Amino acid sequence: MPENSGMASAAAPAVGFLHPGEMGAALAALTRANGHRALWASAGRSAGTGVRARAAGLADCGTLPALCAQSGILVSICPPHAALELARAVAAEGYRGIYVDANAISPRHAREIAGIVAAAGAEFVDAAVVGPPPLRGRDTRLYLSGPSAAAVAACFPADRLILELVGAEPGRASAIKSFHSSMHKGSLALLFATLAAAEGAGVRAELERLFASRPATAAYLDGLDGSVRRASKSWRFAGEMDEVADALGEFGLPRGFHAAAAEIYRRLAGLRGAASEVELAAVLDSLLGERGR
Amino acid sequence: MPENSGMASAAAPAVGFLHPGEMGAALAALTRANGHRALWASAGRSAGTGVRARAAGLADCGTLPALCAQSGILVSICPPHAALELARAVAAEGYRGIYVDANAISPRHAREIAGIVAAAGAEFVDAAVVGPPPLRGRDTRLYLSGPSAAAVAACFPADRLILELVGAEPGRASAIKSFHSSMHKGSLALLFATLAAAEGAGVRAELERLFASRPATAAYLDGLDGSVRRASKSWRFAGEMDEVADALGEFGLPRGFHAAAAEIYRRLAGLRGAASEVELAAVLDSLLGERGR
Repeated sequence: MPENSGMASAAAPAVGFLHPGEMGAALAALTRANGHRALWASAGRSAGTGVRARAAGLADCGTLPALCAQSGILVSICPPHAALELARAVAAEGYRGIYVDANAISPRHAREIAGIVAAAGAEFVDAAVVGPPPLRGRDTRLYLSGPSAAAVAACFPADRLILELVGAEPGRASAIKSFHSSMHKGSLALLFATLAAAEGAGVRAELERLFASRPATAAYLDGLDGSVRRASKSWRFAGEMDEVADALGEFGLPRGFHAAAAEIYRRLAGLRGAASEVELAAVLDSLLGERGR
Repeated sequence: MPENSGMASAAAPAVGFLHPGEMGAALAALTRANGHRALWASAGRSAGTGVRARAAGLADCGTLPALCAQSGILVSICPPHAALELARAVAAEGYRGIYVDANAISPRHAREIAGIVAAAGAEFVDAAVVGPPPLRGRDTRLYLSGPSAAAVAACFPADRLILELVGAEPGRASAIKSFHSSMHKGSLALLFATLAAAEGAGVRAELERLFASRPATAAYLDGLDGSVRRASKSWRFAGEMDEVADALGEFGLPRGFHAAAAEIYRRLAGLRGAASEVELAAVLDSLLGERGR
């Protein structure tokens, strides 16, 4: 494996990634920088995933069984709705290393996955990434909870990522991520919905002027331009909002905020093929559809 | 009416208030400062309303029929759920002056009220107040829409209130207010719910530290202390959130954000009798209840 030569140490466990998307590939590159072999399995993955995996220096084990056999640590990083199924597939391979769920799932689902992989003999670490893929700078936090959290933290260079060890219980890392997203992506969906309604009612200009008139409300519009430009990817947040609804529901709190936010992001799925930079009018059109105009 | 002597002019129409709460009494005082007689009707109102009305210099007409007969302009300013019934009662009196609905209701409900009072021969003006009661400073906006909006604006001193005439259609003023509240009170409810869930999960300190670590998320906590201190009055927002849900629903947008927000504020009703300054722990306890602890 020439791409790992001179980096990987015999003592450092190989770290497998299921499946290296943008975030996973960036995390994999960091484990390599810290002396680990980074692995993936190409079976069933898209050509785009393969390009990204090779660019990040991940070695291809081919299949899931081979990946499980060769990884001392397995990191699951996939769309939230796929997390449970992936854990079951790994457990079915009899994987007994450290299983890290780094997905944007509710604490309840994290604990459920902990139970599944522990039954197969693996050690579970709950993980959550907050911030952009850690490519440059040091603006990304990796939250880890579980008895083996420190072993996972040791795979990453502490000068490239803010490592947050938040206790022994699975679910704590996912809880912090869920409640961060509750505000971060929940309030963006609320803003999108509010601006769409104002557009429908023909008062958007007046509303934006009103928001701009006071610092507390002017803050609603901070960052809106950037969020709109990235709206061709916002459909991905829908599944995460479903998880946050579950996270609030566990404590008897209303699920409606994030069920509504999920609906808002689902309506943006039509922008998926859009040019990389989206304009606000396209977002509002997607939200209003036929009925609201 | 000695309290009006030297102020009221013969040309200025008398302005009736249904019913002078804190906001109504403050608006009434402004119409008096602008040379109008300000009227109310004490029948069926509480002792507290009477004290406030007298303090603001409102003259008591006694009953609703007398108030309708003596007012050239009638301002409805009451809890949102009472707005429709109040308009029906005024229409039943055959009121033919200008009827101003200044309540936090949806545009659809404002148009419904417009139809009710117009059928009785009155002119409808849609109004909405954004900001605190205009006691000092000039931080309150009065939005007005409808053909007679300028006649209503003329009742108020422009140096004490920001007057916003926003068109001829009833519903435009209520739309601006609804969508402002959608963010202002909607995002506060989202924050309360999120902090309650984090408290339930035992990660509130970690979450607040995470929010504080970046300007964009630190802004969520701006103003929280003040909102918590005033939480003994927050139960009042529930009805307004129901109206905002209706305002979004009109355009086919999800009602769930504000249905959830209404539920959050309803759970704070138990703080109604609390000391004037509430602490965050009391808010979170009210939201979590038995189930979430």
